[in-house]
Amino acid sequence: MKAGGVEAGEVAKASAARYGINKGVAVLDFILRILAFVCTLGSAIAMGTTNETLPFFTQFIRFRARYDDLPTFTFFVVANSVVSAYLVLSLPLSVFHIMRSAAQNSRIVLVIFDTAMLALLTAGASASAAIVYLAHKGNTKANWFSICQQFNSFCERISGSLIGSFGGVVLFVVLILLSAIALSRR
Amino acid sequence: MKAGGVEAGEVAKASAARYGINKGVAVLDFILRILAFVCTLGSAIAMGTTNETLPFFTQFIRFRARYDDLPTFTFFVVANSVVSAYLVLSLPLSVFHIMRSAAQNSRIVLVIFDTAMLALLTAGASASAAIVYLAHKGNTKANWFSICQQFNSFCERISGSLIGSFGGVVLFVVLILLSAIALSRR
Repeated sequence: MKAGGVEAGEVAKASAARYGINKGVAVLDFILRILAFVCTLGSAIAMGTTNETLPFFTQFIRFRARYDDLPTFTFFVVANSVVSAYLVLSLPLSVFHIMRSAAQNSRIVLVIFDTAMLALLTAGASASAAIVYLAHKGNTKANWFSICQQFNSFCERISGSLIGSFGGVVLFVVLILLSAIALSRR
Repeated sequence: MKAGGVEAGEVAKASAARYGINKGVAVLDFILRILAFVCTLGSAIAMGTTNETLPFFTQFIRFRARYDDLPTFTFFVVANSVVSAYLVLSLPLSVFHIMRSAAQNSRIVLVIFDTAMLALLTAGASASAAIVYLAHKGNTKANWFSICQQFNSFCERISGSLIGSFGGVVLFVVLILLSAIALSRR
């Protein structure tokens, strides 16, 4: 960055083009972060408000399904909430990158956290997907029966809430890729 | 990189130091890849060879547990095999980075694939972890009973095979971080 004082006109032009690309990457980064935030927050809310009570009950038991009956879904809600909170907190840094396209160290910090959040989000989404699959299909070998015949709307809801989370995973992969490109074009 | 012809002695020295760091990063990258390969391959083999037959049986049924009774474990084996194959294939590129510390584009390619593989490995590991948890604890709300009381050694084996996979996840996070650092220090 200190080379700016001694460089010739052509180098300056090439460098300006590079900064232009980096600015575009930073704007795209900002938009993708907002998108990913909407996805993960939507998933967390959709899963967190899932609650179905069956219309029939015995003297002692009311048949009721909530997301926190299964610990994996609790983890799903926590993971999605944490990631969406992180995305909001990372927005100022993203704005900083739009203004200062040459920033390097802050980008590396962002890559580290993005990677960790990608791992967390993927873990929550795929663990829940495994349980949702089990809820739909059951497993005869382990004597685990499908619960989706009784809790129909519960199952639809938990299946739907996975979509936002997996969308978030894809967006994070793109975000890390964009950061790598921006880091290489200094 | 073309600036090499016009730069002063000090710049050359600083640049040499940067290349030195990049070389160290590349060597570390190579070692971590081999480690991650051992982890994921070990996980795939440990899970893939899991097979327990109980000593008692009825006239019609032999009680038997194999990893492919549960589709999630099949996915686990596939994901770990794919990732370990990728790690072997990425070793030549890693060696190339040791020799040519200034390479940029090949590092970006590696970051893209590393991120995708991180997502795949995390998905397999955490989905299996969710099922392993269910096998150990069961879930009374969903009427899914623990199968670990019957299939004891099966459960120990599947729990153990998760370790290598999660170790691989951590190594991948470090690998992506190293690539980001190498990309920024051109």
